[in-house]
Amino acid sequence: MDYRLKRIRRELAYKGSILDVYKDTMELPDGKTEVWDFVDHRKGGACIVPVLPDGRILVIRQYRPAIDQETVELPAGARNSAAEDTMETARRELLEETGCRAGRLSLLLKLKTAAAYCSEFTDVYLAEELDMGESQSLDEAEEIRYEAVPLSTLLEKIYAGEIQDSKTVAGILAYAARK
Amino acid sequence: MDYRLKRIRRELAYKGSILDVYKDTMELPDGKTEVWDFVDHRKGGACIVPVLPDGRILVIRQYRPAIDQETVELPAGARNSAAEDTMETARRELLEETGCRAGRLSLLLKLKTAAAYCSEFTDVYLAEELDMGESQSLDEAEEIRYEAVPLSTLLEKIYAGEIQDSKTVAGILAYAARK
Repeated sequence: MDYRLKRIRRELAYKGSILDVYKDTMELPDGKTEVWDFVDHRKGGACIVPVLPDGRILVIRQYRPAIDQETVELPAGARNSAAEDTMETARRELLEETGCRAGRLSLLLKLKTAAAYCSEFTDVYLAEELDMGESQSLDEAEEIRYEAVPLSTLLEKIYAGEIQDSKTVAGILAYAARK
Repeated sequence: MDYRLKRIRRELAYKGSILDVYKDTMELPDGKTEVWDFVDHRKGGACIVPVLPDGRILVIRQYRPAIDQETVELPAGARNSAAEDTMETARRELLEETGCRAGRLSLLLKLKTAAAYCSEFTDVYLAEELDMGESQSLDEAEEIRYEAVPLSTLLEKIYAGEIQDSKTVAGILAYAARK
């Protein structure tokens, strides 16, 4: 007897610019059926914890319409294609958003953003030996500012509820624990 | 001059069971327009770090169709309504998924799951003084098993990429840092 949830039908409900939404008809363990929403984030992405030689961390301040708030987040972005290695994504996004190149990139965490209904993943990289040589090269849609903040201040902001972005919270806490 | 992104039109594209999707027409800082996907997770929810007197943490093993994987996650669930206090949600989900009542619940973190395109939030509570009196009372859709795992094992699984769920990673790292 198989108690696993089974998908018995899938119907495309919305084709968006970064994600598609499906109506999945699921067979539950008790035999009943139910329609579940499934958000297919087509690309996945990478997030970076960029640590300066003095220990401060580069973070991005930007306005996020989806939550109608200005946020403090680690640099991050989607892959250019589903074939792109996320370390390449991390390298590119770090350069675009902060103008820095990292001498060393190492995988810190693998995250699934919202496993209950969404396929999105984010690989979190630690970036060290930063070369601050270049200026930002932003997408037209990005209007962001970066700043260098001590780890202790970021931890305070997390516990005070001022930093809430899940990849940022997980990435900073993981870096703090590793140190 | 206002450099903030502006939403100039919103169109409902999909009305789902737990979320709605909108096509937002955004005016970028340079004056161009672009269509962005916006996922409105109608309820938000709560997540719980349940700590037994011996220090082990209760986690849930379940199959997640959205990522086609069995996951290890902290107990969590959506609010019954948009008016529900998330501490109430935490209390109910802990009882439903593990059969435990918590003598003490305290807010540990506030998370926005995917701030780039989704309104979902999750409040993470630390649950202590657990009373293991009752058995699970699951939704029909849930086919989950809970287990008590030492914190050190959970941290190893996070760094090995075996635990990837973002609220679980953030919640466990926050609890470990607070200890």
